[in-house]
Amino acid sequence: MMIDAEQLRRISVKVSSETAGLLRDLACSEDLGRVVSGETTVADKRAEDYILDLLRRELGQVQVISEEAGGAASKTSDAPIALVDPLDGSTNYLSCITWCSVSVAFADPRSGEILAGSVAPVYAGMPVSFARGKGCYHGGLKVEDPRIRGSIISVYVDEPGAIESVAGAIGRLKGVRRDFKVRSLGSAALELAYTAIGYIAVFADLRARLRNIDVAAAVGAVRECGGVVTDADGKPLRIGVWRVERVGSVVASLDEALARIAVGGGSG
Amino acid sequence: MMIDAEQLRRISVKVSSETAGLLRDLACSEDLGRVVSGETTVADKRAEDYILDLLRRELGQVQVISEEAGGAASKTSDAPIALVDPLDGSTNYLSCITWCSVSVAFADPRSGEILAGSVAPVYAGMPVSFARGKGCYHGGLKVEDPRIRGSIISVYVDEPGAIESVAGAIGRLKGVRRDFKVRSLGSAALELAYTAIGYIAVFADLRARLRNIDVAAAVGAVRECGGVVTDADGKPLRIGVWRVERVGSVVASLDEALARIAVGGGSG
Repeated sequence: MMIDAEQLRRISVKVSSETAGLLRDLACSEDLGRVVSGETTVADKRAEDYILDLLRRELGQVQVISEEAGGAASKTSDAPIALVDPLDGSTNYLSCITWCSVSVAFADPRSGEILAGSVAPVYAGMPVSFARGKGCYHGGLKVEDPRIRGSIISVYVDEPGAIESVAGAIGRLKGVRRDFKVRSLGSAALELAYTAIGYIAVFADLRARLRNIDVAAAVGAVRECGGVVTDADGKPLRIGVWRVERVGSVVASLDEALARIAVGGGSG
Repeated sequence: MMIDAEQLRRISVKVSSETAGLLRDLACSEDLGRVVSGETTVADKRAEDYILDLLRRELGQVQVISEEAGGAASKTSDAPIALVDPLDGSTNYLSCITWCSVSVAFADPRSGEILAGSVAPVYAGMPVSFARGKGCYHGGLKVEDPRIRGSIISVYVDEPGAIESVAGAIGRLKGVRRDFKVRSLGSAALELAYTAIGYIAVFADLRARLRNIDVAAAVGAVRECGGVVTDADGKPLRIGVWRVERVGSVVASLDEALARIAVGGGSG
């Protein structure tokens, strides 16, 4: 019962947007920061429960990979794999900083190909989504001419080791375009989604901490918009879909040359 | 015709909120990034014109200090000085990143004391405001118990020299609280305003670039909420109000000890 990519895209938009609405309604109320287990807070858990319920209602058969649901998906099942990050940017959300998002991606359980996905901002703005081979979208509109429109480099500096490597990337990129500004906004999925539609020029998270559930939807969007996504060595990023796993460092841009310069492999 | 601080606070909330509404309506439309003069874009100019009009309507007599209006205020006039930043976080705004704000502060032209002010987020959230000696506010509610609620350190890393000094501050602060997360969000006024109400734990901009019009309203809010605001040497920040001028680096927190540790003068 494999569903087509465009149908999966629509479901991912619906599920991510409705969950963003739930989180917006709950925002800044008490007790959401209490830890349920591991790093999962009440906010994460409530958003995830909501998503699981929506996914089952929309798809019937679905294999879910997520922080809480955890588990492993079967390669012999026909049910699509949903890679779910119910709240990317939890720290922002719990601090009432209005930059966080909900990510849902769908993969083919046999090939591991990511077929569709959506990243919805919790507060302001429209979801960024894609269907493999069918285009990337901002809200209901297909992005017909994806190109870099902004001058922001998105980085993370909150690991001791990361700050030095990031400093190098910043220096090289500013050598190419002096007007680049550096931001560390706090929802990797949302920054990658905005890289897909060109609002962010270069994304470089060199902390080696990102997981497949964090970035599957957004990485798919960058690629479908015509951008490149690599690891810290400049090799195309590979994303496993059968269990929660780290993908490590991620660099992305609509401009391949800029991504290369960020990882130190360019001529800049 | 000196007006009382609470009345000035209400006017600052009204003017900043309505201008935020204008900017929200204009967001991501074309041509806003075209430079009019210096660093002033069409977006800055339209927001500033709107503010000047509102201020004159609300106050009649007012001396305005701002990027465009520039100029110098007179110490012998009774008309309050309005320090205006019509769009703090222009780069974000022009890149469609939904984190930017409008700042309006009022000062006594004779003493130079900042009497009231408001910082309004352009997209989501309520203005943070204060009236000197009368309390700080989040939206329409007085903040009765200002304390740190979040775990975010706000820094700027986009100047080559700043990244090293910031790395030191980050290391020292993480030595005190390991769960601190580092963000570089892009609107100093909004980050300072959120420091005032405890959403951000420590603000440290060590680029020596901030101007009085950028931070007058937000610094007033931090102090009225009971926090401390210093320069990079840990000395109380002084803000001139009679012309546009740099105040340099700014460190702020509701917790004096954390601000001290950020500048390297603490015991952490």
